[in-house]
Amino acid sequence: MSQNDELKARGEAVIPGGMYGHMSTYRMLPEGYPQYFQRGEGCRLWDVDGNEYIDFMCSYGPMIAGYANPRVRAAADRQRETIDIGNAPAPVIVELAEKLTRQISHAEWAIFAKNGNDSTTVCNQIARGRAGKRKILVAKGAYHGAQPWASRRTKGTPEEDYMHFPMYRFNDIENVTEVVRTHSGDIAGIVVSAFRHDAGFHQELTDPDFAKAVRALCDQEDAALILDDVRAGMRLSLDASWAEHGVHPDLSAWGKAIGNGEPIAAILGSEAWREAAASTFVTGSFWYQAAPMAASIETLSILEEENAPVRLKALGQRFRDGIYEQAQRHGHSVLQSGPPVMPTLMFEDDKDSKLGFAFCQAALKQGVFLHPWHNMFLSLAHTEEDIDLALEGTERAFASL
Amino acid sequence: MSQNDELKARGEAVIPGGMYGHMSTYRMLPEGYPQYFQRGEGCRLWDVDGNEYIDFMCSYGPMIAGYANPRVRAAADRQRETIDIGNAPAPVIVELAEKLTRQISHAEWAIFAKNGNDSTTVCNQIARGRAGKRKILVAKGAYHGAQPWASRRTKGTPEEDYMHFPMYRFNDIENVTEVVRTHSGDIAGIVVSAFRHDAGFHQELTDPDFAKAVRALCDQEDAALILDDVRAGMRLSLDASWAEHGVHPDLSAWGKAIGNGEPIAAILGSEAWREAAASTFVTGSFWYQAAPMAASIETLSILEEENAPVRLKALGQRFRDGIYEQAQRHGHSVLQSGPPVMPTLMFEDDKDSKLGFAFCQAALKQGVFLHPWHNMFLSLAHTEEDIDLALEGTERAFASL
Repeated sequence: MSQNDELKARGEAVIPGGMYGHMSTYRMLPEGYPQYFQRGEGCRLWDVDGNEYIDFMCSYGPMIAGYANPRVRAAADRQRETIDIGNAPAPVIVELAEKLTRQISHAEWAIFAKNGNDSTTVCNQIARGRAGKRKILVAKGAYHGAQPWASRRTKGTPEEDYMHFPMYRFNDIENVTEVVRTHSGDIAGIVVSAFRHDAGFHQELTDPDFAKAVRALCDQEDAALILDDVRAGMRLSLDASWAEHGVHPDLSAWGKAIGNGEPIAAILGSEAWREAAASTFVTGSFWYQAAPMAASIETLSILEEENAPVRLKALGQRFRDGIYEQAQRHGHSVLQSGPPVMPTLMFEDDKDSKLGFAFCQAALKQGVFLHPWHNMFLSLAHTEEDIDLALEGTERAFASL
Repeated sequence: MSQNDELKARGEAVIPGGMYGHMSTYRMLPEGYPQYFQRGEGCRLWDVDGNEYIDFMCSYGPMIAGYANPRVRAAADRQRETIDIGNAPAPVIVELAEKLTRQISHAEWAIFAKNGNDSTTVCNQIARGRAGKRKILVAKGAYHGAQPWASRRTKGTPEEDYMHFPMYRFNDIENVTEVVRTHSGDIAGIVVSAFRHDAGFHQELTDPDFAKAVRALCDQEDAALILDDVRAGMRLSLDASWAEHGVHPDLSAWGKAIGNGEPIAAILGSEAWREAAASTFVTGSFWYQAAPMAASIETLSILEEENAPVRLKALGQRFRDGIYEQAQRHGHSVLQSGPPVMPTLMFEDDKDSKLGFAFCQAALKQGVFLHPWHNMFLSLAHTEEDIDLALEGTERAFASL
């Protein structure tokens, strides 16, 4: 029995369904994907049976400067040497807040938390606190966390938990305008993602006109434009992701990559929302933990030094071009969507995902960790050589189909 | 200008209200409390101006085996050497789930998260998922996190967020029975705390008859008894806190102390709730992080080796006895409530908290960090000598009143 199967048997006894959430291979991935990993370094992961993978998931986003990045680890360790938790935060919280508010155009203040769940929820609380209004518009199909208001799919969630979160269609100006009209006067905010990165679907870049229209609607309603930059943040831009469209949110939610895997999330806000933020009681036992803040400062420095979005884009484009060429040559229609830094790769006419699953399983056997229906992620630890090596693996995977 | 004041000035520019949540001295504590700390070791904290304190807050609970405990730190570091985050968890998640389900009587499975917020919310989701019912009863005044359903005080939170959380009075069998009768047939769970540890009030131990009555009501309604053991967990007992009353919950929420400050929370459940847990999608980017799990295993081992609840109780009683004697001698009526391991100290006839504030401020100047209106915490890093040294400080504080 493999180590992975042995651990799975043990895990099934003490973890519901064998594993919970997005890291469950049971419900999320086809056969053959490892449920447990024993080592991570740079852009590589090793499963518990010693199989090595070039990783294109980056732990679903948090890893952006390499697993076990020595600079980030050293920064966190230096902080741990003096203080990690106390009865109040360490000075590093001020340094990180100063760094982020300098870096992110719209941000005048910061609050730190642990997960994307926290930051999207806190944005809503602050938006409602300022507005004294109830409705927060969310895009149909978008993911903003698994907490009740954001997971209307969950069995047992009463409709009251999400009745004040009316849905609009992303990139559809007419539709969002219509939904705003319906709830006009009671709108506290509109939540948008960096782009349409709904899992299981071809990704869709943001139409700049849509971004501008949402901004105008928020202004018109005196509501908060809330950018959920948890998943895409720091990969598309070192500013908030809609900055490239010239559109700035009032509140932005961050998580995943900002600490290169140390657990930290952030809520950033504009001046007009500061007072509401100050009078909204939001907290968590570990939201003040210092080591992840030190890790975040170091991560942000690395991203800036290496001009991460440009570098990641080039790597992503190299991967995309390679996949395109291979798919063409092997006679497969592969639709690659979303920005190159967050590649999504799905086969056309593959409704039951058979082909996508088979391809990813074959790539996995070649040491390339791809995801068949979720957007993937690139990191600064990937080199051109890694991409080329991965493409050798996908070439063999295509050949085996 | 002191370092603390300098940092506060900088912080006020980039953090709403100067600081958010329970670690804000601005809204939570009288003048003189440091907003920033630079070092923690054992049971001692040093503020950014170098003042040393014997700490009775333990970071509001997480610290239980000493700040910078070398064994816990080493366990976390060993895990970081191989893998902390990946595309799936490390084997340590199984080891921790096995350890907790062996240790906690009612627990047959575990899910890990980051904060108490997460664990109480996930308990609700699972309770509702199994029952297909909506109401979760909560005790009036109890704290279960700052997320919308648990913070009806927050401005802007629509009533729909908490309308399915009817309130009962803790320790009042007649009242909870009445509230159950009102919502009978639609009750998914009843949330209880280990004891009544509402901030700002004298604490109240759990009446064992109340505990048994709540258990019977849950059985009668086929609803989950949800124990929020986030704050008290592992200090009163190495089992779930109501085990001493012979009462076992169906779901329990853990956080704070289980990792000695490394960020980890847990949801533990009985067999009958496993299926519901398996079919409820709950997750967070960092819920699978391995280092805090390794830290938690080591922390739990230390707590068991040192028989933490017994040891902490003796330390707490020593502190309580000392304070009692001093208060008597100085002619002050001090009411000490709650279990000795989580001391709460308030003056009688002190409605505006003037006396309590003055006493705690005086103690702070003597290097003793007390809280004037929140329960405090003891740790294994406190020695008899530390308690006696702290009592020398409180003696001078009483004398100065």
